[in-house]
Amino acid sequence: MVSIVLVRPQMGENIGAAARAMFNFGLSDLRIVSPRDGWPNEQALAMSAGAKHLIESAKIYDNLKDALADKQFVYATTARNREVEKQVVVLQDIKQDFVQNSAIIFGPERTGLTNEDISLCDAILTIPVNPEYPSLNLAQAVALVCYELSTVIPAKAGIQNEVVMDSSLRWNDDGEIAEKAKLYHLFDFLESELEKRNFWQVPQKKEKMCNNIRNMLTKAELTEQEVNTMFGIIRNLTER
Amino acid sequence: MVSIVLVRPQMGENIGAAARAMFNFGLSDLRIVSPRDGWPNEQALAMSAGAKHLIESAKIYDNLKDALADKQFVYATTARNREVEKQVVVLQDIKQDFVQNSAIIFGPERTGLTNEDISLCDAILTIPVNPEYPSLNLAQAVALVCYELSTVIPAKAGIQNEVVMDSSLRWNDDGEIAEKAKLYHLFDFLESELEKRNFWQVPQKKEKMCNNIRNMLTKAELTEQEVNTMFGIIRNLTER
Repeated sequence: MVSIVLVRPQMGENIGAAARAMFNFGLSDLRIVSPRDGWPNEQALAMSAGAKHLIESAKIYDNLKDALADKQFVYATTARNREVEKQVVVLQDIKQDFVQNSAIIFGPERTGLTNEDISLCDAILTIPVNPEYPSLNLAQAVALVCYELSTVIPAKAGIQNEVVMDSSLRWNDDGEIAEKAKLYHLFDFLESELEKRNFWQVPQKKEKMCNNIRNMLTKAELTEQEVNTMFGIIRNLTER
Repeated sequence: MVSIVLVRPQMGENIGAAARAMFNFGLSDLRIVSPRDGWPNEQALAMSAGAKHLIESAKIYDNLKDALADKQFVYATTARNREVEKQVVVLQDIKQDFVQNSAIIFGPERTGLTNEDISLCDAILTIPVNPEYPSLNLAQAVALVCYELSTVIPAKAGIQNEVVMDSSLRWNDDGEIAEKAKLYHLFDFLESELEKRNFWQVPQKKEKMCNNIRNMLTKAELTEQEVNTMFGIIRNLTER
């Protein structure tokens, strides 16, 4: 199942318009991380028009990690090119190698996604726009992504076809890619062990180095077995 | 040059959001027929954000014919399938045989285009949507069309490339297709001649029969020379 994840959205109207666009193209799983104006949101409900049930069943999270826990592959939408070592997918090409158990995440209206948000994702998804005016409205960006996805998702009218989905899980050469919850536990474990050992000698560099490590480990497309092995390695290295 | 034409739009917010989406994808020629709340419109200006100049330079018309006068090919966007004998183009396929000197027209939010509006157009443009919820937001529909067009229009950042455009005028086997103004004069002339002769014996059927005649003549893709010939034929037939 494909999920649309709005990260710290500001305007309820945009949340509602995004839900409407999702349902227009047969998507139904809406997840929202820390909406600025809290939840429920009257404006979101009003703007969602005939897609009210998507707003009413939206899942709300405190942090992005939890919102992505059951996913195998995560696309981060960005307007600008980031200096990040990640696969870049142009929206028109998203059909190629599309991972069904995935999430597309969208940042707040004013600022977009942070580097930390992006460090949790597998690929950057870009929408080619006029360089003179690249600022897309949040709900319109969601509409464009859902429009492109409508021809690849096995969903019809919000009903997910579990059989087709199972057959299109993401595999690498060694097996099925681990769910994000597993990978993020590895991040937490490694970061706390490094913290204990005063690895971050310059505190200002901690965030950037953390993001680099996450990007590196995400890029590896680890299977569940490989994540377990990594846990084992870290435990072994840290034994007294 | 590709023009976006909003026909009797109701909400200023949607006009502004449509302008913003146009500029995001490098389109700049916005035409508006009889906006419900008059013109200028404060809400349109506010919602257009960085695309204010498109709102300020939008051309306003009393009727759709005038808005389309200088065009060679017109696409009518509709949600529902209409029982009209016209070419149907699916948005994903609009790049094929795209006519540069064209317009895409969008109907009012609540009701969409009338059959009379559609009788002035060459093709129906459809956006494949979830049949359970086909109602697209007006500005999002504009965004989707502009997104698909961004890869075929020779425009970049709103600057039209006249040389490329001239080379992609629409021709049929007999020459360049007439501009709509010429064709619509033919409609008016023929309809007034028929009126004089009491052709519409049942007044309730007049609108439907008019639309049928327009659809027929539009489908013929007449060149300017052929339109002149038609004028000659009608004059000849009506001479005492």
